[in-house]
Amino acid sequence: MTRSQLDSVSNLLLNSPLDLGGDVAKMRRVFDEILGAAPLPDDVRTRTIDLGGVPAVEVRAGATAPTAGTVLYFHGGAYAIGSAAGVGLVSEIARRTAATAFSVDYRLAPEHPFPAAVDDALAAYRALLDRGVPASSIAVTGESAGGGLALALLLASREAGLPQPSSATVLSPWTDLTQSGGTMTTRADTDPALTRRALQTRAADYLAGADPRTPLASPLHADLRGLPPLLIQAGGREILLDDALRLAARAAHADVPVTLRTFPGAPHVFQGFAPLVDEAAQALDQVAAFINGHIQPEGRP
Amino acid sequence: MTRSQLDSVSNLLLNSPLDLGGDVAKMRRVFDEILGAAPLPDDVRTRTIDLGGVPAVEVRAGATAPTAGTVLYFHGGAYAIGSAAGVGLVSEIARRTAATAFSVDYRLAPEHPFPAAVDDALAAYRALLDRGVPASSIAVTGESAGGGLALALLLASREAGLPQPSSATVLSPWTDLTQSGGTMTTRADTDPALTRRALQTRAADYLAGADPRTPLASPLHADLRGLPPLLIQAGGREILLDDALRLAARAAHADVPVTLRTFPGAPHVFQGFAPLVDEAAQALDQVAAFINGHIQPEGRP
Repeated sequence: MTRSQLDSVSNLLLNSPLDLGGDVAKMRRVFDEILGAAPLPDDVRTRTIDLGGVPAVEVRAGATAPTAGTVLYFHGGAYAIGSAAGVGLVSEIARRTAATAFSVDYRLAPEHPFPAAVDDALAAYRALLDRGVPASSIAVTGESAGGGLALALLLASREAGLPQPSSATVLSPWTDLTQSGGTMTTRADTDPALTRRALQTRAADYLAGADPRTPLASPLHADLRGLPPLLIQAGGREILLDDALRLAARAAHADVPVTLRTFPGAPHVFQGFAPLVDEAAQALDQVAAFINGHIQPEGRP
Repeated sequence: MTRSQLDSVSNLLLNSPLDLGGDVAKMRRVFDEILGAAPLPDDVRTRTIDLGGVPAVEVRAGATAPTAGTVLYFHGGAYAIGSAAGVGLVSEIARRTAATAFSVDYRLAPEHPFPAAVDDALAAYRALLDRGVPASSIAVTGESAGGGLALALLLASREAGLPQPSSATVLSPWTDLTQSGGTMTTRADTDPALTRRALQTRAADYLAGADPRTPLASPLHADLRGLPPLLIQAGGREILLDDALRLAARAAHADVPVTLRTFPGAPHVFQGFAPLVDEAAQALDQVAAFINGHIQPEGRP
């Protein structure tokens, strides 16, 4: 039983100085302070690069050179905060997959509303393809808003006639900017990180007047046909649980191969607490097995 | 790509002499003929035993002696046909898990309507516990109606104050005897094995006047709290797809650890075609990893 680990982490989140619905400038400062306080593990190497005009952080982790494919990663932060400099979670994925990961510094709202983030995601993906990286060796991954953005990238790629990546993994994805999931209510008292009000505030910033059901902003409302195999993970105590469950059903209806796994008691993006929480390590092991089970290493397209 | 394997198997099913909605006596004869035509693999050993007054077939498979726990298995057949003598699928699971499996010959409708099957399932489970088999070493598994029955057993065990097994795995489960899933309509033209009309006929036989929303007959409509980790697999072309998807959502809402995997293009209980279809082998590998990931071998409760 690791329920007490999950409870401990939930308490940490409850007492976090981050207030997702609060002042953006202040939140970004707090986020930078949190980042600055967490040194990188010894085996993680990062460098800033350009992907189609979009800054990104290349992340390698592990004792040996990367052997598998490429992970294209989108951080969370409700489209308003976060940055590719926060490599904690993506480096865990890079280490477990032995892939080279690229975390994309897509533009943030409110300065850059929808569809700026989607445009940047597509530009970064296209840049990888233009470099000769086969789509079949790329795994797209994202957490929270980055999960929604990862799905939007798949849709935008499909519309642009680009090949789909080998798989997509979304952790606690924010897929519905209308906040209509039943768990917005049923998990309101248990979610230590998110509130509907905060999400509404950030959705309004991001949408800047666009319809919240626009498929590229709310992939739950999209036609999902043609998407690659999809791994969806969510915590049982988060208000976004239904964003994951409804995505799973809708993708299955659209003939997308779906793997869904839920973790009762776990908060939003609990995978970020891998060293502290057994479920986080289990979840990341599943992510790595899923990614590597679908990736075609370069040279073997 | 194995889509042509799935198409071939779907064509086999479309041309099968089995008519699930047809005359029960005739269906049972056809089923026996199909069974008789399929010899057991060399490494499968079976014997008929008694589990709490209920006949069951003990199934062991593989070159070595069983090392893991116990799989309690419930065959499909819409509560009207099928028998524990059909050990094809359960022996695949026994081989991959290295467990000893027991396939339960629960009583069938229309001669023995609900709750006879649930009573038999509970008696068999209780008999294992009474023999000293720890619940933590038992994995409950079922396909189609047997998947619904496996879930009903978990509910009945909870009500009886018995401990839950280590996990439950349900393949293409029939969880809703009201036939209200959207895929009853959207998959009507693609499902090669099942029709809503046939399921309605068999549901009426089984229910014999009971409310089709009775939780022990339609676990989708049950309070699922307290159930053990649940693996749900379903095919993308079956009318029961929504029975699986809705079960996943409802179980997750009830804080059950859920793993769901869907296989586009796959028909009802495609796992039974493991030697012919790559997806079937992949699905069974996931079943075995899931079961063994939760089972506590006897002596290490």
